[in-house]
Amino acid sequence: MSDYTFNEKRSVSIGDAERFTAALYEAAGMGREDAETVAKNLVEADARGVYSHGIQRNSLYIKRFEKGGTSPTGRPFVEREFAATAVVNGDNAMGMVVCEYAMNKAIELGKKYGTGAVAITGSNHFGTCAHYIQQAVDAGMIGFVYTINCGNIMAPWGGVDRVLGNNPFGMGVPCRKHADVIMDMATSIVARGKIVVARKTHTPIPADWAIDTEGRPTTDADKAYWGCVQPFAGYKGYNLTFMNAVVSAILTNSSFGDKLPDLYEDPDKVQNSAHLFFVIDINAIDDVEAFKDRMDETIDFIKNGKKAVGFDEIFVPGEIEANCQKKAREEGIVYPVEILDENNALAEKYGLPAELRL
Amino acid sequence: MSDYTFNEKRSVSIGDAERFTAALYEAAGMGREDAETVAKNLVEADARGVYSHGIQRNSLYIKRFEKGGTSPTGRPFVEREFAATAVVNGDNAMGMVVCEYAMNKAIELGKKYGTGAVAITGSNHFGTCAHYIQQAVDAGMIGFVYTINCGNIMAPWGGVDRVLGNNPFGMGVPCRKHADVIMDMATSIVARGKIVVARKTHTPIPADWAIDTEGRPTTDADKAYWGCVQPFAGYKGYNLTFMNAVVSAILTNSSFGDKLPDLYEDPDKVQNSAHLFFVIDINAIDDVEAFKDRMDETIDFIKNGKKAVGFDEIFVPGEIEANCQKKAREEGIVYPVEILDENNALAEKYGLPAELRL
Repeated sequence: MSDYTFNEKRSVSIGDAERFTAALYEAAGMGREDAETVAKNLVEADARGVYSHGIQRNSLYIKRFEKGGTSPTGRPFVEREFAATAVVNGDNAMGMVVCEYAMNKAIELGKKYGTGAVAITGSNHFGTCAHYIQQAVDAGMIGFVYTINCGNIMAPWGGVDRVLGNNPFGMGVPCRKHADVIMDMATSIVARGKIVVARKTHTPIPADWAIDTEGRPTTDADKAYWGCVQPFAGYKGYNLTFMNAVVSAILTNSSFGDKLPDLYEDPDKVQNSAHLFFVIDINAIDDVEAFKDRMDETIDFIKNGKKAVGFDEIFVPGEIEANCQKKAREEGIVYPVEILDENNALAEKYGLPAELRL
Repeated sequence: MSDYTFNEKRSVSIGDAERFTAALYEAAGMGREDAETVAKNLVEADARGVYSHGIQRNSLYIKRFEKGGTSPTGRPFVEREFAATAVVNGDNAMGMVVCEYAMNKAIELGKKYGTGAVAITGSNHFGTCAHYIQQAVDAGMIGFVYTINCGNIMAPWGGVDRVLGNNPFGMGVPCRKHADVIMDMATSIVARGKIVVARKTHTPIPADWAIDTEGRPTTDADKAYWGCVQPFAGYKGYNLTFMNAVVSAILTNSSFGDKLPDLYEDPDKVQNSAHLFFVIDINAIDDVEAFKDRMDETIDFIKNGKKAVGFDEIFVPGEIEANCQKKAREEGIVYPVEILDENNALAEKYGLPAELRL
């Protein structure tokens, strides 16, 4: 995403973006329903301002169909089930298809047992954690998501080998008056895309962003490009990214480290990605409506606090994205034209009718 | 802990430290069994090198008995139970007593349902997350711990009010050849104790450690003392500490923000602290013995990687503490004499026999 200049922009309604994207994935070999699932997921990320995880990835995902890395017709299924737990095998379908199914399974378990844990294997890049957390939250539950990322850009703390992803994770809860609180974050200090851009523009980078191939902090974007992105909070971010991999990939015997094909570089290789979802039905612990009231009070309390010098507002996790989404619903999503052009070229390749173009 | 100089040290065996501590808590009003639970918990922290959460807190905890803030005879109980979930009310007992009971309940649920979630209210400062995670790990489970901390030292991102703790959290898994992997970390960039020490010694602090009362980053330890400790990773650490509070304190309608009495400053006030424990029985997902083998392989892979300049070894989460614990079992715990002197003074006050003294 950081490759885009944002110099020229065009507004597209959420509905139009979804119709386009669904038609594109259908043309690329997916069933209609799955194509719609993917479309809603990606356009939701764009509406929330998280363009890095939206339709700008269409070309990448579809290339993986073309090269055989991901199956457009994979059907996720429950491979194993025991009481409040399940293992979902994604059958190498797109992560969005696998994970909507898996979170629905977790919610089903949560309704029955008060809590549910679903481990997922045979999956692919799933977009944003926030989407699945929101599914749980919409069901009156607390949602937790852990995942391995689909490319290695980080090293273990004290190492230099690029064997860890900036594995994201998140959790969320429902509110009433306020937008639901959804935390979704990666464990790197910065997106690798920012280093790619700095390298292209010959701009130095902050010293804490990356290490070179010998593990030395560097301000040289080219050296950083060949090295590793730093975890956030030093060894603490490394700990977190390692644990996220353990509870997803190692738990389910899925790809990890040098066994993980790269999302971008290996479009012909099956990734066998993994995730872990768990939910807690709030009603099992306390009345969910009373909880929502407490959340509203808590958010008011936080937001009404005295502001630091240089700040006009205090936000809670996911609030900025929720504000962005509200605006996008009213005014459409403001896309950099590069994203639209790239998608229209894909649409031409796949013979989409002209009236669907963005 | 950072108040201690570590200039003079004395070695104490784990057994002696446990016997002393159990006798002290019994003399201060606890039942024998509960006193032993607390003793094992605190001495374990010391053995792992986490002195900040060990017996140096005895004077604080016992002061809370004396002033009425914590009940030496509280009996935690299951207040509510639904399938794989439970709410434990701590009855204002010491956090170590409450939480060992609560994690045992979670493990019981995990054995029956494959997963279990226990929300805890009416609790107190519980020591280290690692202890409870280890309970789950010893039962062949993945353990997750979230908690609110018992004192506010941080502000919301963009704010200045000291209304958030550096709420710690953690997770862990069992291994075979290697020590179990246990992550346990707080969400502040640094322990507040380090700012206290810098203030005493008139030493400047790094600019990212703290903000002053107006929310400006400061290198002046005195200004930092009256301000707030910064979250790790900027707004990401704030997000995490906020969510940890939500899934513990807000979920269970326990103390949060300006309603939370301070662990140190308000020894006469009931804290009504909260935690959330979650476990997954690995056998529900895959054979736990196969998982342990995969963990060993994963750790070997990480540790055998190329080292960064300036590093001799790569560690996995909790490994340094496990190494420390192994050494303490063989050679005893090396305590700064200040900790021992303070405890011996307490022992004198509570009439402990001379042969128990440290």
